[in-house]
Amino acid sequence: MRSKNDSKPGYYAVIFISQLRDDDPAYDKMAKDMEELARNQKGFIELESVRDHMGQGITVSYWKDKASIQSWKLDVDHLAAQKAGREKWYSEYRVRIARVEKDYQFKSE
Amino acid sequence: MRSKNDSKPGYYAVIFISQLRDDDPAYDKMAKDMEELARNQKGFIELESVRDHMGQGITVSYWKDKASIQSWKLDVDHLAAQKAGREKWYSEYRVRIARVEKDYQFKSE
Repeated sequence: MRSKNDSKPGYYAVIFISQLRDDDPAYDKMAKDMEELARNQKGFIELESVRDHMGQGITVSYWKDKASIQSWKLDVDHLAAQKAGREKWYSEYRVRIARVEKDYQFKSE
Repeated sequence: MRSKNDSKPGYYAVIFISQLRDDDPAYDKMAKDMEELARNQKGFIELESVRDHMGQGITVSYWKDKASIQSWKLDVDHLAAQKAGREKWYSEYRVRIARVEKDYQFKSE
């Protein structure tokens, strides 16, 4: 878990749930590249991502504000990846953009 | 992907990311019971959950409003599961409560 961030609520979450069609090493590379690209975007806070053995995944990225999400959505390389995602990799996905109002955590000693 | 819901934005998401300590069949049973219990709560919309082979999981549940989330948090059986989670199952977790402002999806033909 890479939750090192202590941003105060008021930031935004992009909840991306997706189903992959097949196992494809090219997908893994693209996903890694996109994560790297996101991390270097203005307003990026952090990203959490889990995919199971059935190819279902949830990725939640956190952003300072809605403008940062909009810029990320329109990034040229990201647009190309979104297109490839629809054409090749995902059988379905759903995106929700939500404003975080509360944030708390637990860590065992 | 079980995204059959067509709720208009304005509903709430509870984003729960957790790291399990060990593989424990008792955990799987509890998780299944809690999902069932959540589905029967007032204000519940839907739930999406993914856990990988390293024991990291993201569960996002969606609720009509904040009052529904509060009731669910205070449900007696759920309180017992939360306690067991902290004592036995999770090495860490983080909860974020967020108001969904935008929601869109893709499904291949």
